[in-house]
Amino acid sequence: MLLNYCFTSQAKKAYSPKVLDLPNVAITIGDPAGIGPEVVYKALLNRNIYDTCNPMVVGSFDFARKSGFDFSKLPCRLYDIAGDIASRIKIGKISAASGESSYRYILKTVELVSSGDADAIVTAPISKEALKISGHDFEGHTELLAKLTHTKDFAMLMSAGKMNVVMVTRHTAVSEIGKKLSSAKIFTAARLAENFLRRSCGIKKPRVAVLALNPHAGESGLMGNEERSVIIPAIKKLVSKGIDAAGPLPSDSAWLKMKKNKFDLMVAMYHDQAMIGFKIISPESLVNVTVGLPFLRTSPGHGTAVDIAGRNVADPSSMAEAIKFAAKYC
Amino acid sequence: MLLNYCFTSQAKKAYSPKVLDLPNVAITIGDPAGIGPEVVYKALLNRNIYDTCNPMVVGSFDFARKSGFDFSKLPCRLYDIAGDIASRIKIGKISAASGESSYRYILKTVELVSSGDADAIVTAPISKEALKISGHDFEGHTELLAKLTHTKDFAMLMSAGKMNVVMVTRHTAVSEIGKKLSSAKIFTAARLAENFLRRSCGIKKPRVAVLALNPHAGESGLMGNEERSVIIPAIKKLVSKGIDAAGPLPSDSAWLKMKKNKFDLMVAMYHDQAMIGFKIISPESLVNVTVGLPFLRTSPGHGTAVDIAGRNVADPSSMAEAIKFAAKYC
Repeated sequence: MLLNYCFTSQAKKAYSPKVLDLPNVAITIGDPAGIGPEVVYKALLNRNIYDTCNPMVVGSFDFARKSGFDFSKLPCRLYDIAGDIASRIKIGKISAASGESSYRYILKTVELVSSGDADAIVTAPISKEALKISGHDFEGHTELLAKLTHTKDFAMLMSAGKMNVVMVTRHTAVSEIGKKLSSAKIFTAARLAENFLRRSCGIKKPRVAVLALNPHAGESGLMGNEERSVIIPAIKKLVSKGIDAAGPLPSDSAWLKMKKNKFDLMVAMYHDQAMIGFKIISPESLVNVTVGLPFLRTSPGHGTAVDIAGRNVADPSSMAEAIKFAAKYC
Repeated sequence: MLLNYCFTSQAKKAYSPKVLDLPNVAITIGDPAGIGPEVVYKALLNRNIYDTCNPMVVGSFDFARKSGFDFSKLPCRLYDIAGDIASRIKIGKISAASGESSYRYILKTVELVSSGDADAIVTAPISKEALKISGHDFEGHTELLAKLTHTKDFAMLMSAGKMNVVMVTRHTAVSEIGKKLSSAKIFTAARLAENFLRRSCGIKKPRVAVLALNPHAGESGLMGNEERSVIIPAIKKLVSKGIDAAGPLPSDSAWLKMKKNKFDLMVAMYHDQAMIGFKIISPESLVNVTVGLPFLRTSPGHGTAVDIAGRNVADPSSMAEAIKFAAKYC
């Protein structure tokens, strides 16, 4: 949890020189009106972080200092890029200024990682609404990063300890899930995530459990047909490509098995099917990973939480895990 | 867990006489081809049960004895009612004979509780498929019991320790959930469950959390509209009736709060929204309660598990909890 270390200028110096042998991780402070600046700052108070990477923080640091988070005291490289719009940001209130700022931070981190200055990126939460009112209409980070890097196939992997879940649909109304599912999407999400676990995380032969959409896995078509029409064909294709995939498994009993580490990866058909389990078992150590991009990108498992921004009560654990994850697997 | 007590005839006698001051609980052995006979038998090996109720078991006891479960050694009243069809039952294989037997057990328990001989009933799992091939086409126990007792409004409440969840839809394909939800159904399920917790379980003012259907509670209509069209109106009606109801809450964060006992009751919109959480947190102590019937009926949280029937590996914990729950709250 929060370690109340304070870096004196000596300490800062002592933690600075390991530049060569550690990866450089570029970190955005996310929407500055939310808890992003707070969780990044608090995560970087944890000295262990500096044994894993050289953090490079992208944000608006005058604004952050006024909110109580003086990044200049931390042994990180800082990239202050929001310019004059930063003066219009208000803590706890998303706006065009906060949305535009969060957008510029992302552009800068992509520049850093594309040029080779950074080895991976970590993004604090942004507000879709703020992005929209600032004129940038993206569903979220992932879609923006995919566009900036010309990536066609990507997926969101959630990771906490030995538990990994990739989502086939994400911000989709429950009534639309069935229509949005396809064998190709299930296959792609599973393949990208399995590939990441194998190549980047060193799991030799990841055991993949593909979840059913419907209760009791549809009971042979009695309750929904997506298991037969799209999920089973996707599993067959995964198996034909040499992937150790099983299913479709009813999501309730599959989660119990996941908790006992019977699988390395679950393929979830929708948002809450993945998130209920993670939030119960391991809310603090949840890390989001975008798989399929040309570089590693992680983010914490929570949102902007503007309702608690500025109150100094946000928990930096998930952000700290996201930074460590990026440092470890990039 | 399983206590390997053996009741000698003396012990059996010693445990028999508390008839007057304890409730009589009628228990079916469920589909005899599944793990029902085993979990009932093993649960009744636990002496604590006899401090809470006088068990009355309804089943086919010759068949159970041949499967290794000699109920005649237990200090319970036995009702052997399946007749000649019992000889056609095969362990691990559901059939018309097993379905018909499970149907007759239910009729008998309803007779026992209707006549006042029993104070509550506990049902071991049945097979919907076996019921169907034996000519009884019911979605499950609940629907059959509702029909037998002319009950119009009923709901399935799941309970484990201090956690209670009532489902608005149950065995419904995910693509159909939105169409099947209505304000009236949400209101009725919540009201019946709240009423049960208040009157039978002694919770003075149950705190009720109504879950959203869509991820992030729909984000003001960005992802699905059911929150606004049916869930919020139901919550308003609940509040107008003096019920302490809040929501709609995103199901992932609500489960985290439930785990911390911030609510007494959650109202889930669909099967897996309720079951993922229960299976992760407390699979062994899960009890199903049908609320709205003229008597108390409980059942364990698992199914017939015919795949492991006859292997003596079934866990009786959930059945034991179901019996104790029925004894305590009837």
